[in-house]
Amino acid sequence: MNKKLGKQTVAFSQPPVIINAAAVGGQKEGEGPLGKDFDVIVPDDKLGQQTWEKAESSLQRQTAVLAMERAGLTPNDVDYIFAGDLLNQCVGASYGLRELQIPFFGLYGACSTMTESISLGAMLIAGDYAKNVMCVTSSHFCSAEKQFRYPLEYGGQRAPSAQWTVTASGCAVLSKSGEGPRITQVTTGKIVDMGITDISNMGAAMAPAAIDTLCAHFEDTGSSPEDYDLILTGDLGVVGSDILIKLMRENGYDLSSRHNDCGKMIYDIEKQDVHAGGSGCGCCGSVLCGHIYKELKSGRINKMLVMATGALMNPMVVEQGESIPGIAHAVVIES
Amino acid sequence: MNKKLGKQTVAFSQPPVIINAAAVGGQKEGEGPLGKDFDVIVPDDKLGQQTWEKAESSLQRQTAVLAMERAGLTPNDVDYIFAGDLLNQCVGASYGLRELQIPFFGLYGACSTMTESISLGAMLIAGDYAKNVMCVTSSHFCSAEKQFRYPLEYGGQRAPSAQWTVTASGCAVLSKSGEGPRITQVTTGKIVDMGITDISNMGAAMAPAAIDTLCAHFEDTGSSPEDYDLILTGDLGVVGSDILIKLMRENGYDLSSRHNDCGKMIYDIEKQDVHAGGSGCGCCGSVLCGHIYKELKSGRINKMLVMATGALMNPMVVEQGESIPGIAHAVVIES
Repeated sequence: MNKKLGKQTVAFSQPPVIINAAAVGGQKEGEGPLGKDFDVIVPDDKLGQQTWEKAESSLQRQTAVLAMERAGLTPNDVDYIFAGDLLNQCVGASYGLRELQIPFFGLYGACSTMTESISLGAMLIAGDYAKNVMCVTSSHFCSAEKQFRYPLEYGGQRAPSAQWTVTASGCAVLSKSGEGPRITQVTTGKIVDMGITDISNMGAAMAPAAIDTLCAHFEDTGSSPEDYDLILTGDLGVVGSDILIKLMRENGYDLSSRHNDCGKMIYDIEKQDVHAGGSGCGCCGSVLCGHIYKELKSGRINKMLVMATGALMNPMVVEQGESIPGIAHAVVIES
Repeated sequence: MNKKLGKQTVAFSQPPVIINAAAVGGQKEGEGPLGKDFDVIVPDDKLGQQTWEKAESSLQRQTAVLAMERAGLTPNDVDYIFAGDLLNQCVGASYGLRELQIPFFGLYGACSTMTESISLGAMLIAGDYAKNVMCVTSSHFCSAEKQFRYPLEYGGQRAPSAQWTVTASGCAVLSKSGEGPRITQVTTGKIVDMGITDISNMGAAMAPAAIDTLCAHFEDTGSSPEDYDLILTGDLGVVGSDILIKLMRENGYDLSSRHNDCGKMIYDIEKQDVHAGGSGCGCCGSVLCGHIYKELKSGRINKMLVMATGALMNPMVVEQGESIPGIAHAVVIES
């Protein structure tokens, strides 16, 4: 029997297994510290397409197909696919995955989408609705820049707190049984808005949501940071990670020796000139499904919490004077 | 024990109950044939806000709060809220619902979002993950026109096949027990793209997905149109409904005496000058949570299938030459 712990957490009696995963990245991601852990580095960030949007769809398709094939599955074996991305109307997912012909749930959780999809996928499997579920996200630097910021050709200056949208996609294949790391708990986040309005400082906008979900998780489960080998946030970057560590300490939790952030890991922040680090749905997606999945499989990580974080704004409403709400969903994985 | 029927359908052993619902509409919707079945008609389509985006968020908030209060619940009683809308990055939902502080799953299913949210909400309740779940969607004519078509001030001509985005929001409150119509089955749709590229003919783009899901439903469950008092599509409008009836007949199913479409019901199509009918996430949302919910409660409908339909495109990718993929999710409701 699955158990609801506190208000926001579910613990699975038969934890779903991540039977396989795939991460595909762009050139810059391939040159970063985790480059060797990507399954594929695409030779051309446009993936042979005519537009950046089509390139992102293609990236998502390639990643999903690779993960599915590695898991030894065909589309007919997959009960549901959960997917999303940052593009308007989530076209990365809908155009990328339309050929697969798998029952599809489209999600929008901004950069929190990877753990949103794993949370729902795991709940459907542990609820006996599905044997196999795929969870896919992507982001692309070029499609994100033109949509959220400036045309690439403009060559705009970037603020020191700004993050670099990752060109990558990650796909996890969850299954009722099999070999691999298991999803034992999920903690679903609330929307948290502390009034940040700086569109060049997403880390600060998302950190309060990360703190809210993480505190809820520790309270719901009675666990503490020491119970985890790694507490991995999605893409708080340098600025947001510092806020997280500081404010969690004020809440009585010392994360300093356990925490890392996908946005800090994926690039060499100094050498690759990415300011506050990486971001985008594909950041947590590809780091989790690439590097971290290999660490879990090898036993170098035994028990971890991964929490992707999202900023639920669009540029127009921020120009209209709105602040930036954040959200974070946490997933516990044990190998 | 919940049962998977065929590939796409789940039948619930303990069907979740729609314990309450609310529908809030704009002026034009209030003047339509279902006007009296809205719980609130807002006196001003801007809802006292400065922008159309904020108006839509406000509409979604008002609807969610009304449904929750009617169900006798506080935010603390609600385990999860599933929500989405058509705005870029789904800001209708994230800004509209941030104050509620309920664990939040953001969805993007375009105009299919109402039944996507009910499908997932019902699965989480019947899977023992939740006692109460809220499902919310909205759309707004003015925020949709400026985002998908032309600035309102331009006064562009509308094609005869074009639909009118509904200014409305619907919210259903699902619960593990209680009084009300029950959700007995859900059939999850695949993305279907038959190559339609006319952005002024969403009905034709979405009809193939509706046909695909409906045929899957009949096959998975062994049911036929005669088993339902009503087969209600979300917003195929006049053009899409005609395609649905015709092609379902070719598939061996005669829907003609059972079918209706929220986009055809919500307006007086001739008098209100809406061309092919209504559309938008709030179309199925408000018709289901307003008029239809009352019909179910009164016993005038005993067993029905509702299937919201979505077009998963954005205007930019269609300008890039892409066709328009559709999706449809079906939910069986019994009173």
